[in-house]
Amino acid sequence: MFFIKKELELTYADTDMMGVVYHANYLRYFEIGRNNFTNSIGLRYLDLEAAGHVMPILDVQVSYKQALRFGDKAFVKAWLEENGTVITVYCYEVVNEDESIVYATGKTSHALVTKEGFKPVVFKTTAPDWYEKYDEVAVKRN
Amino acid sequence: MFFIKKELELTYADTDMMGVVYHANYLRYFEIGRNNFTNSIGLRYLDLEAAGHVMPILDVQVSYKQALRFGDKAFVKAWLEENGTVITVYCYEVVNEDESIVYATGKTSHALVTKEGFKPVVFKTTAPDWYEKYDEVAVKRN
Amino acid sequence: MFFIKKELELTYADTDMMGVVYHANYLRYFEIGRNNFTNSIGLRYLDLEAAGHVMPILDVQVSYKQALRFGDKAFVKAWLEENGTVITVYCYEVVNEDESIVYATGKTSHALVTKEGFKPVVFKTTAPDWYEKYDEVAVKRN
Amino acid sequence: MFFIKKELELTYADTDMMGVVYHANYLRYFEIGRNNFTNSIGLRYLDLEAAGHVMPILDVQVSYKQALRFGDKAFVKAWLEENGTVITVYCYEVVNEDESIVYATGKTSHALVTKEGFKPVVFKTTAPDWYEKYDEVAVKRN
Repeated sequence: MFFIKKELELTYADTDMMGVVYHANYLRYFEIGRNNFTNSIGLRYLDLEAAGHVMPILDVQVSYKQALRFGDKAFVKAWLEENGTVITVYCYEVVNEDESIVYATGKTSHALVTKEGFKPVVFKTTAPDWYEKYDEVAVKRN
Repeated sequence: MFFIKKELELTYADTDMMGVVYHANYLRYFEIGRNNFTNSIGLRYLDLEAAGHVMPILDVQVSYKQALRFGDKAFVKAWLEENGTVITVYCYEVVNEDESIVYATGKTSHALVTKEGFKPVVFKTTAPDWYEKYDEVAVKRN
Repeated sequence: MFFIKKELELTYADTDMMGVVYHANYLRYFEIGRNNFTNSIGLRYLDLEAAGHVMPILDVQVSYKQALRFGDKAFVKAWLEENGTVITVYCYEVVNEDESIVYATGKTSHALVTKEGFKPVVFKTTAPDWYEKYDEVAVKRN
Repeated sequence: MFFIKKELELTYADTDMMGVVYHANYLRYFEIGRNNFTNSIGLRYLDLEAAGHVMPILDVQVSYKQALRFGDKAFVKAWLEENGTVITVYCYEVVNEDESIVYATGKTSHALVTKEGFKPVVFKTTAPDWYEKYDEVAVKRN
């Protein structure tokens, strides 16, 4: 399975009064994973936008396994779970260096839409270069 | 079904370069719903903490239905989906005033743990006042 | 002096592991003050954007006086300190209900620029309706 | 002058509907600079907390010079402007790689206080190891 693993820069800002990373911040960590994943296979999200599209999130799911604290050395792992004709699914793990601790796991699904009006378009035919590249690295293909 | 409905103060800060509210911010909106829900039934989360416990999130799920923009008038609805012996489940909707638009729906599950060490405790017996109050307003009971 | 005073919805998300509101979040509180200020005098920021302009922040200054905590009842006060030909200056206070506690004070300055290219324009002549409205409520005028 | 320069991981989350990084996020970038600065001279902020103290921010000042966008390669520079007996002052710049563009400059001042009660203590005598280390790298000394 092709994935990236990227060290996170945890900040005091990310924590809450429980002394741990506030749960919403994992979605930013997932985004970091996703950005580094696409960059690592030579794709640039901004090219999609330049072509008149954006790729909003349809669904998010996160399971929190272990409290993550400022001072911990944490990494986000990201991989392409499914390269659908219309829907793209990413999966994530937030882990420590040797991956003996899994802080959280998650999944996001995405669809390509027009920048103006957010009208859904078919990912496979609208961004065929992305679709083909994705097909080489996806766990599941359509 | 007992629920609260609370107007949200959308900010420019909440938006991203897609021109819509960034998806992670809905988790803060859900928290606002949850806080207002517990306050509305006479409970105060800080009392749990004063008693040596915190109530972290175990799982989050969000489905994004419609783009929400700065300038939109939006509300969070929150209700107690399940009052478990150990696990509490909240559900949410982000809607417009007359609820003809549903921007997002979501669910969070929570468990009570010790403030130091994050050791799980039984909600029903550790915070019986909360459990009983919850039992009056929960959709599902244990 | 004309000002608005708006209750803030403090969240757990806003706090950090110090147990208080993380300092950056006051800038969002200031934005809430600013938004409510302009709305209260019948102006809508989105109209500036629809006309092809945006109003970024040039300078920010915040002084933190007292720790603000989740559970505190806090309000943002905002007023227009200076209505300049080019530069607009807002001032803020974050206070408790009877204003016996000042949590923070701050100031932001703004200039109107083109949406594409961020080229500075003259506020007074580009948005004369805003400038005139502002002139009625500003502490200092140009 | 001793300083650190650390690449930032800009995210979509950091942007707003103006298409640029929302101004409050620079305070998180500054924190990243500050954290990396102290780590680079062998200090660990969490040791201060373990000893019963925290170091809140007293004042923040930011000047925004140039719009920063998702996709830009940006760095935070941080240095210790002043090592006072009581007050510590950090300065920052957010720049591009060759520093031909300065996106923003800023300053924060800090004081050591007790974790419980936020009572001010004298930095020089309460954390002498920090004070001495700081004295070697500060631009101005007391």
